[in-house]
Amino acid sequence: MQERVTMADVARLAGVSTATVSYVLSGKRAVAPETRTTVEAAIAELGFTVNTAARSLRTGRSSLVALIVPDIANPFFAQLAATLQEELRALGLHVVVCNTRADREEERALLAEAVQQRFAGIVITPFRLLPKDLEALTLTGTPVTVSADVPFGAVDTVAPDARAATRQALERVTASGRRRIAMIAGPHDATGGDPRLDLLRSLAPQFGMSLPRQLVARGEHTREAGAAGFAELMSHRYRPDAVFCANDVLAVGALDKAQELGVDIPGEVALVGHDDASFASLVRPRLTTIRYPAEDVARAAAQLLKGRLDGRTVPRTVRVKAEFVARSSA
Amino acid sequence: MQERVTMADVARLAGVSTATVSYVLSGKRAVAPETRTTVEAAIAELGFTVNTAARSLRTGRSSLVALIVPDIANPFFAQLAATLQEELRALGLHVVVCNTRADREEERALLAEAVQQRFAGIVITPFRLLPKDLEALTLTGTPVTVSADVPFGAVDTVAPDARAATRQALERVTASGRRRIAMIAGPHDATGGDPRLDLLRSLAPQFGMSLPRQLVARGEHTREAGAAGFAELMSHRYRPDAVFCANDVLAVGALDKAQELGVDIPGEVALVGHDDASFASLVRPRLTTIRYPAEDVARAAAQLLKGRLDGRTVPRTVRVKAEFVARSSA
Repeated sequence: MQERVTMADVARLAGVSTATVSYVLSGKRAVAPETRTTVEAAIAELGFTVNTAARSLRTGRSSLVALIVPDIANPFFAQLAATLQEELRALGLHVVVCNTRADREEERALLAEAVQQRFAGIVITPFRLLPKDLEALTLTGTPVTVSADVPFGAVDTVAPDARAATRQALERVTASGRRRIAMIAGPHDATGGDPRLDLLRSLAPQFGMSLPRQLVARGEHTREAGAAGFAELMSHRYRPDAVFCANDVLAVGALDKAQELGVDIPGEVALVGHDDASFASLVRPRLTTIRYPAEDVARAAAQLLKGRLDGRTVPRTVRVKAEFVARSSA
Repeated sequence: MQERVTMADVARLAGVSTATVSYVLSGKRAVAPETRTTVEAAIAELGFTVNTAARSLRTGRSSLVALIVPDIANPFFAQLAATLQEELRALGLHVVVCNTRADREEERALLAEAVQQRFAGIVITPFRLLPKDLEALTLTGTPVTVSADVPFGAVDTVAPDARAATRQALERVTASGRRRIAMIAGPHDATGGDPRLDLLRSLAPQFGMSLPRQLVARGEHTREAGAAGFAELMSHRYRPDAVFCANDVLAVGALDKAQELGVDIPGEVALVGHDDASFASLVRPRLTTIRYPAEDVARAAAQLLKGRLDGRTVPRTVRVKAEFVARSSA
């Protein structure tokens, strides 16, 4: 049934010209916000979808957008995928999720496949990719948007603004008397280093603290690495009383280990995650975390991708605000 | 660097012929288990990967396999994706995950895209797809494997064998004196009905119980639907003392609602999930569930797909054993 709704039907219901509907869909010309809203409501009401087969014939591109992520088992990326799909649906695009397991060869292979298959676009969260890997890609003409903590070469980027949230997290742990912060971070060779560690370290002096290298445990972004990192930190001579984690998956691993070791969270050690993945409120104690809203990241990525599909060639960086979420673990 | 490792290098290290390496990779001929192990070790040691571009030119097919699932935010499917990827990697195939949000039009659109793009294969967990949607597909020549509770037309199928595990779950709840079982099931119009409900209902009489229609709540496979279903069951005149859920996502929603309503789990109501998703052991109380091992499902699907790629045309059904996991919620 959906196939039979045409752009003309949408135009009629919205009381605009077919050209205006086309502009709203393609973004090729500016449309007044009220008009856009009316057209979008008509699109939703009629269940209109773009005829992708016809478009594919016209553009020579498929209707698939690759979302390339290091770990699809991390609910942050699952949410990112779901929202990106919602956002791109009105354009007749389908999102396929590619899992790299944080492996650079896999990242490169999947990028190459997406280009070779003439995908409509690529959204990638690099983990071990080097800037040069992406540079080669920009020459292929396939639109690319990078979701990373720091801008990554001359490509469209969605990056967090986590300064205020990280400061609030530090306020929270110092308010409960903690003085010795530590971090469970990612591996040494991750793309762009470890900006979450850098941020924490740069803010710590404002609270009369520091984050020495010895109090940084490193590993993959896995639950197992979180457990190992927590054990390492607990065995340290200068035992920390507040542990920050580069993401919530690591934090859950730390919780596992704390329980095993009989370390009371937050009594003995305050624990702060990052992302606010869906399970952050399921674990006990509930995880205090720095929320990086996957929905907003996906919306920003979709907007950047739309801009590229419209022919914009100047790279843009969009910042998405992170938010401190106080629960029970800190 | 990996690109420069050839099949000849692997053959040399393993002490076999290049043809044998090729057979191990393609599965086109039987290879003795010891030989296979030696070759696989050499592949791993050298980091050998198949030259997919060359193969793609030869076969006219891409190296992408679509995994089409109703909900990528459900960790069961994330695990399925990760293991399927591991299994297909030695064949030089990449898995892309497509999320249908349990929507039939999306299921159809993604199947059509995968065929149109000449994907190497498709693994699908249908949710609202009809048998006729798949029948059309079998004519296209794209190898398809279905993961579903019941066989679904003349296609390769991976299905659970959950009879023994469901019986154990019933033993467990009756041993703690429960007499009134209920179920939070999927929607009425799901593909293949609700085999998990049918199985529970067929076994209940062996324990002197029944599962009347009024004690079946229905909804999408979401946390929200689990909460709504639990509330509905709790308001029932004949209030159940044991609630089974069609999957763990529903069960977590039921836990949310139990906490909100002040219903003690397992004191007042025993709760049993299905799948053993990663969060099942994270929630409190820890979820008692019927484990359907995603890893085994993925391995079986990969084997069936390999068989199709080798030219087998007779449909096969592989059963994967489910296992009862007793934790704290029942």
